Order: sequence, then C-alpha cells, then structure tokens
Amino acid sequence: MPWAPGPRTGLAARPLGPQDAVVSVPSSASVPDEVGAFLAHARARVEAWLERWLPTGEQAPERLAEAMRYSVAAGGKRLRPALALAGALAVGGREEDALPFAAAVEMLHTYSLIHDDLPAMDDDDLRRGRPTSHKVFGEALAILAGDALHTEAFRCLLDAPLDPAVLVAQARRLADAAGSRGMVGGQVEDLAADGLEPTRERLQRIHRAKTGALIAASVVGGALAGGADAEAVKALERYGAAVGLAFQIADDVLDETATADQLGKTPGKDRAGAKMTYVALAGLVGARRLADDAVADALAALSTVGDDARLAALARYAVARSA
Amino acid sequence: MPWAPGPRTGLAARPLGPQDAVVSVPSSASVPDEVGAFLAHARARVEAWLERWLPTGEQAPERLAEAMRYSVAAGGKRLRPALALAGALAVGGREEDALPFAAAVEMLHTYSLIHDDLPAMDDDDLRRGRPTSHKVFGEALAILAGDALHTEAFRCLLDAPLDPAVLVAQARRLADAAGSRGMVGGQVEDLAADGLEPTRERLQRIHRAKTGALIAASVVGGALAGGADAEAVKALERYGAAVGLAFQIADDVLDETATADQLGKTPGKDRAGAKMTYVALAGLVGARRLADDAVADALAALSTVGDDARLAALARYAVARSA
Repeated sequence: MPWAPGPRTGLAARPLGPQDAVVSVPSSASVPDEVGAFLAHARARVEAWLERWLPTGEQAPERLAEAMRYSVAAGGKRLRPALALAGALAVGGREEDALPFAAAVEMLHTYSLIHDDLPAMDDDDLRRGRPTSHKVFGEALAILAGDALHTEAFRCLLDAPLDPAVLVAQARRLADAAGSRGMVGGQVEDLAADGLEPTRERLQRIHRAKTGALIAASVVGGALAGGADAEAVKALERYGAAVGLAFQIADDVLDETATADQLGKTPGKDRAGAKMTYVALAGLVGARRLADDAVADALAALSTVGDDARLAALARYAVARSA
Repeated sequence: MPWAPGPRTGLAARPLGPQDAVVSVPSSASVPDEVGAFLAHARARVEAWLERWLPTGEQAPERLAEAMRYSVAAGGKRLRPALALAGALAVGGREEDALPFAAAVEMLHTYSLIHDDLPAMDDDDLRRGRPTSHKVFGEALAILAGDALHTEAFRCLLDAPLDPAVLVAQARRLADAAGSRGMVGGQVEDLAADGLEPTRERLQRIHRAKTGALIAASVVGGALAGGADAEAVKALERYGAAVGLAFQIADDVLDETATADQLGKTPGKDRAGAKMTYVALAGLVGARRLADDAVADALAALSTVGDDARLAALARYAVARSA
C-alpha cells in the first residue's frame, strides 16, 4: 500500500501503546542521582511522543520515514526536551502541555545533527556510536530526512491543544533559535572559523548561536506552555543561555578528555581539525572554570522561579556529565 | 561590525523605502494581459517584503545573508505569492494581511529549490539562468542557506499582526504542504522513481506532494489571512490542488518544448534523465489535454468564491505560460 500525501488526520486520537516507545541507544553517561530519574522520565515521555508523531511508511515514503526514525531513535541524553518539561513544571504548569514542544525541539536538534554530519559540513561517519544518516541512507535522503524533521518540528508543536497565542510565541521562539540569527548562523560561522585564532568574543558568539539559542529556547518554550509570565520568561532566558554556554564548554572539554566509547564518536577531533574551542582558548583548567562560572550564573537566574531544584540539577548536570 | 545572534527586534517598525526592492531576474515568459498586471503587482509587493525580512550582514553571518538573498532574488514568476494575495482578495480580505504568508511561501519554495539542485539530488548547475547556490557558495553554505530560509519562512508568517488562531492555521497548513507528507515526501519519491515505468497514479501522488501541496497551501493560507470561512477554504483547496496539477503538467510539457533561454536551464533534461513525467505518460498532446482538464477543474471549484476572476486568470496562466 503506497503512502498517500496530504494533511495528517486523527493523529491525536490514536491511543498510545507499549509498541510506541522509541527505545534510544543507552548512554554510557554517568548521571548524578538527583537528576537521573527526571532525565529518564522525560526521555521516556518524549520518545513515546516522537514515536507517535513521526510518519510511518503509510504516511510518507517508506525510506524517508525510516531515515527520520533512525536519527531520532539514535537518542542521546534528550537534555533539551527535559529542559522543556522542567520549564513548564518550574512555573507551576503541567508537563504534558510542554510535551509537543519538547518533541519539536528534539526533532529540530536531530535535523541539525543530520545536516552537520554531511560530507560537505563536518563529514562525520559516526554519531552516538552509530553510522550517520548519510552513511546509511545516502546523502540525498539524509538531507531530505533533515528537512522533513525540520518542518515536522513546527507542525508538531503547533498541534498542541494550547491557546494559539502560546503556540505562536513558542514557534517564534523556536524559529529565532534555529534560523539565520541562531543555530544556522552559528554553524556557518563555526565552519568559517576553522583554523582562526580563537577569541573569547568570537567563541561566545558562535556557541550562543549554534548551541545556546536552542537550549535556551527549550526551557523558555516549555515555560510558555506552562503559563509563564514575562518575568519568569526573562529569568529563564538568562538561565537557558548560561546552561547552553556551560553545556558547550563541557562539550569542548569532553572532546579532549573522554574516550571514544563514552562519546560515541572519535575524540580529539576538534584539535585535529583546528576547531575553535574553549579548550583551545583557555586550556583544560581554564575551560572547566568558565563552565563552572556559567553554571553559577544559571543558578543565580533561577531566583524568580523559586530556585527550582529540577532546573538547578539540570544546570549542574550540563557540566557534570561524562558524554 | 560582526553580527550578533539573537531574536529580531523592531523589524516591523522599519519603514520601507525604494532601496528595499529585491529586483528579480526579468523572465522571458509571455504573460497574458489579464493576469500580467496582477503578477507584476504581486511580485513587487512580495519582493519588497522579502527584502525587508531577509537578514543583513549585521543580523547574520555575511556570507549566509548573501546566499539567502542570492537565491531569493533569482526570482521567477512568484506565482505562489500571487496566489496567496489573490486568495485573500477572493474572500473579501485585505492583500496586506496575506503578505507575510506570501513571502513565507516564496522562502519555503526557494529553500526547496536550493536543496533540490544540490549534487546529491538533481545536480543542477543552472537555475533561472544563473549558477545554482552550491556553484556560487559551495555545498555547505547552500545547504545552510536552504535551512535558514526554511526556518525564516515560519518565522515570517508568524510575525503577521493577525489573530493567533489564523497564524496557527496558516503555519500548520504550510507545514503539512512542506513536510514528509508533502513536498519532501514528493521529492523522495521523485528521486526513487527515475527510470521506473510511469503510471498515472504514481505521477499524481508524486506531483500532488512535491508541487501541488505548496501551490494549494499558497492560496489557502492567503484566504485564511483574508478571513475565509470553512466552505471557501474547502473550495480553494480543490482549486489549488487542480492548479498545482496543471502547473506541473505544463512544466513537463515546457521541458520538452521550450528553449534553454525561455527556461533558464537546459531543456530535455527530464527525458535524458528518464524522469517520470506527464509527457512520458501521455505524450505531448495527451499531457496538454490533461493540463486543460485540470484548469477546468480549478475553474469549477471557484463557484463558492464568486468565480473570482483573478484566481481564474491565474489558473489559466499556470498552463498558458511559456517558461
């Protein structure tokens, strides 16, 4: 039976069953107890939602549906969706209201990884210990699977049964984080920066755009779903930006210190490629100190949302993780 | 002065000036008088909007902003935006309310062309008489410029000062047309179909998804901006689907009959690549008849919107054009 193009119908009505769990690749990360249970819970919820949302071979061409699911199922920490759910809870909202946005953020993140791995970009063969999309499906399908996940991210979040004004605010925030002024802009500048002398200003600009914007949007979008007021949004913007920075510095440190097994890819690749990193800028000890400063900034920002313990733990986790 | 990442601010407040016109490449198409004036008007309005919306080198990395503008300015007929504006007018709405959506549709269309032209896909060197994006900017930047236009399309339409419920309906419609069940799905199946025996069912499925869905979404999204009721939306869905089919059949015919100068690319490429086309399916005469049937279907669908003369002319234009 070939797929039939057209808008989705009745998707929200389909009951979830045990067959719906996308089982992600187990991570070798050592997760602090305080946040491990929440991360596992958030991961299970968002993976069930993704499984339900992603097209099957009846709804889209079989190979495309496969390629989309392959990369989404490659999993990882699901930190962004966890931040989205935690953002809703931190402002007194309901976790399920943030679930479509959380799934959307993960799809958007996955699209960016598929495209970043392409031969014309970072040319990576492995991602989270598995062959990258273009290695399995070929370049054309990898590009198109990324494109499809990109669109589906917006479609998914706009399907949430929330006030349309909230959906518009979430989608705008996600687009600002993802577009030319955010993630894509950061990737362009990152590619252009290879071999250049690192400066703290340039590094911050790249990482704020490439990684930080989407991490900040994750917590803010979740908080919007939870009914956050303007003051809480502002505080969580600051929190998210700091967590994004901490996360990126930790990434640079891990590329130097972690094993291939921990990373699921070849470590030391940044140095070999003369990548502009925080380690290149400040050394290992200096980079760790910058990461700790960023975490402290994130924790300081939490005062207007009652020093939410879950968000505090997620901020500490961003640097304490081992992969 | 390097670009600074972050959300856009105050863009809507900037007054438009004469410097804002993106001048598109003049087309060699002979346009029937009845629709020529409207197409020229719609083109000028949407190009001014695109010029205003697209990032500058202060808002995004310079080369990215350049690459985005290069492909958008390559222009063409701007049929989709014209359909969006005409859709708003047909239901008694205001043209300017549909303008952000019209610009969004053109950005989305442009992103799809950039990615379709990539070496891993159709591998085209020329588009509308100019070198394709990857020929000018390299593959990495072409992929990223497409990605950025994809995101900006959603960001742009969500910025319109309309009822959020209308924005959500427009964005959902656009995403359905663009995603795995629409345009991207159609491109995947189109790539897979090279060399296969054409069947009418398969061709229709491919083209409904790859081309028809976005053309239908253009007129429907415009009509939503203009305050269309459910009955008008339904009629315009049918109109749009028929126009999309007519447009695609005409494209297949033009690939056989037009000159390189008219097309702005090499004609006969479909046949050389063993592409599945309506000409391969039904022959030139048969394909022209199918296109005429589709136009008749489009005109029949217009009765619930007062047989709108502008939309009727645009439907006829979809097959009467010479490029």
